[in-house]
Amino acid sequence: MLKCNMERLEEKILCYSKFGDTGNGGITRLCLSDADIQGRKEFIRRTKELGADIKIDDMGNIYATLEGSDNSLPAIVMGSHADSVVNGGNYDGILGVLTGLEVAETIVKENIPHKHPITIMIWTNEEGARFDPAMMSSGVICGKFKKEDMLASSDIEGVTFGEALAESEFCGNIENRLDPKKCLGMLELHIEQGPVLEQHGVDIGVLEGVVGMVNYEFEFKGQAGHAGTVPMPWRKDALFAAAKALDYLHSELDKLDSKLVYTTGRILCHPNVHTIVPDNVKLTLDARHQDPEVIKQVVKVVENIPKELAKCNVSYKELWARNTVNFNKELVDAVQKSVDALGYSNMRMYSGPGHDAQYVADIMPTTMIFVPSDGGHSHCEIEHTSIENCWKGSNVLLNTVLELDKK
Amino acid sequence: MLKCNMERLEEKILCYSKFGDTGNGGITRLCLSDADIQGRKEFIRRTKELGADIKIDDMGNIYATLEGSDNSLPAIVMGSHADSVVNGGNYDGILGVLTGLEVAETIVKENIPHKHPITIMIWTNEEGARFDPAMMSSGVICGKFKKEDMLASSDIEGVTFGEALAESEFCGNIENRLDPKKCLGMLELHIEQGPVLEQHGVDIGVLEGVVGMVNYEFEFKGQAGHAGTVPMPWRKDALFAAAKALDYLHSELDKLDSKLVYTTGRILCHPNVHTIVPDNVKLTLDARHQDPEVIKQVVKVVENIPKELAKCNVSYKELWARNTVNFNKELVDAVQKSVDALGYSNMRMYSGPGHDAQYVADIMPTTMIFVPSDGGHSHCEIEHTSIENCWKGSNVLLNTVLELDKK
Repeated sequence: MLKCNMERLEEKILCYSKFGDTGNGGITRLCLSDADIQGRKEFIRRTKELGADIKIDDMGNIYATLEGSDNSLPAIVMGSHADSVVNGGNYDGILGVLTGLEVAETIVKENIPHKHPITIMIWTNEEGARFDPAMMSSGVICGKFKKEDMLASSDIEGVTFGEALAESEFCGNIENRLDPKKCLGMLELHIEQGPVLEQHGVDIGVLEGVVGMVNYEFEFKGQAGHAGTVPMPWRKDALFAAAKALDYLHSELDKLDSKLVYTTGRILCHPNVHTIVPDNVKLTLDARHQDPEVIKQVVKVVENIPKELAKCNVSYKELWARNTVNFNKELVDAVQKSVDALGYSNMRMYSGPGHDAQYVADIMPTTMIFVPSDGGHSHCEIEHTSIENCWKGSNVLLNTVLELDKK
Repeated sequence: MLKCNMERLEEKILCYSKFGDTGNGGITRLCLSDADIQGRKEFIRRTKELGADIKIDDMGNIYATLEGSDNSLPAIVMGSHADSVVNGGNYDGILGVLTGLEVAETIVKENIPHKHPITIMIWTNEEGARFDPAMMSSGVICGKFKKEDMLASSDIEGVTFGEALAESEFCGNIENRLDPKKCLGMLELHIEQGPVLEQHGVDIGVLEGVVGMVNYEFEFKGQAGHAGTVPMPWRKDALFAAAKALDYLHSELDKLDSKLVYTTGRILCHPNVHTIVPDNVKLTLDARHQDPEVIKQVVKVVENIPKELAKCNVSYKELWARNTVNFNKELVDAVQKSVDALGYSNMRMYSGPGHDAQYVADIMPTTMIFVPSDGGHSHCEIEHTSIENCWKGSNVLLNTVLELDKK
């Protein structure tokens, strides 16, 4: 089996860990910041050295394409994002770009023949950490968001995405956008951002899709009162109502499928003063599962929450939802075949977090490859994946590209 | 029975509702603000008109004293505070000043003979809403706080209490401080700030003291994780741990005396993002009861909280505590005698909130009189007590002063 070069890949990761280095082992590389621009220029420099043709589209996405022996064939695309959250790690997103780069370098340096053009990509503003929403540019290209709305999205200093893009050297042509007619499919390698692969002692996650999700906000309305004056039987404590709701949600949702994950991550308590009985509490519920039937059961649990808890009024609203995305079977099979041929331990899985690939899957064949995250940590400076695992991921990517090239 | 003049009292309340008028039925009259200074000047103008001698101490407390027929006797003191919280009401604190003023006016205008000097007071910065802590100046005079620390306390704009006091006309002499040797006792009339009197259909609360209290902060330490990636059995959700703690606290504390009041009013959840499993939650518990034995039982419940809930580490610390304050029996009896003679419905009670009287009780005979709060509302613009109830309170205050004057 053909393999990439581990030292070369490690050098790439180290190089990019300098672009936005926080000094604490992590990076802050917000979309179109100086650090992001540095990373983009380095990507262009390195891919040009490999002989790639560079194109940039009107959302700042960069495409570096190596010619194939038959350029009438559709391109095989690899890519991910280069931006990060504030105080993020050195792997989220960028590893999908750098393994793509290493695959291209391996192919060029080892003169590996391929018929199809091979494209390596950087997607703009995946994190949404500077400009809301996340997965902005894949969302525009795949028809999820209106471009004009996205151009108007502004950062905390009031700079819009449109302004930042116009000021950068990365505002390209709409005609350069990822075109399903000209592509065989897209492969996105990414860190898992969770503990499942590590806990199972497995090297590679063979993705089958992105789980569907629902997100609700519950509201509990009680009555404020002074801590020292209102007798207990007369209280309507909205925080106690929220605690009872948490108990209800856990006990009901735990009866559903064991692969369901749900999170009650945000609580807003008013007035949130230690001497006042809370009169209003808001609580979010995020629930994810690959099977739409299980998500329907979650919705039923939400709908069946008692209308009154701890004498407080209970209501809820849906904040958003997404349907399960299933990746392309041929591409998933190609990944599986490569992993098996390489002899790496692996498991089939669905992604919990969203990725650009979930939007791209709507317009062309797409799939993802996961590598383990140490301790499941991500979006933090201690985010880490061993170089061995990164390298194994790049080998899977390389062999999958070559497998697809056989078509 | 002698009585005050209801119209005159109403005029006083209306007059003071202009000092800091928010335009929404309430006031914002922060300590030593322009609105507070207006109120202080009006108090001096009105008491001077009654022939009172004005003294101001080094904490800005104002003492207006009417001579008695025997000025070698100790003074009978009435008073409360004139400052308010932001968007507070027209009764909290100021009613104790204005009923004192009305009592004095009744005594002067109706030439009611009295042996003892009679002092009406304004206590500075009871709310602590501009300068932390609450009950600042009674605390200094009664030896609870160091004066230099209080002078250094600053508002949100960085102005210290010492600076604001020095700039006002209300920085007086330390020798003018309330002196136990020169006082028979202090009476503080106040709104209840809770619903108990109203719910019992009772006009007057005859106070026996201020309940003891403990205040704790619990901390729950879990493990952060992405909403979409961490399987449920591996989660350590600090918010779920807090919900379990709330359940524990309610079920254990509800077994104790029915007069116990406890409040879990403040919750801080980290990182408080809907897609992240909370890793740290802090939750406060405030518990109050007049019987120290019940407070000891509360402490036992706190100490017995499980060290682990929902796989999260549980710890706690005491934020503060205060012992039960019992008011002076002779003064309480004098209030009771007056209420009974007036034929007003009444009940014995302990104050849940703190008041200047609780500190003063440590240095001289002290008690309080409560009048009902409509709906139990206080520290808000809809705070209201009917003029009939305010007037009944002033009548109790008048007759208690005259009862004490017989000594």
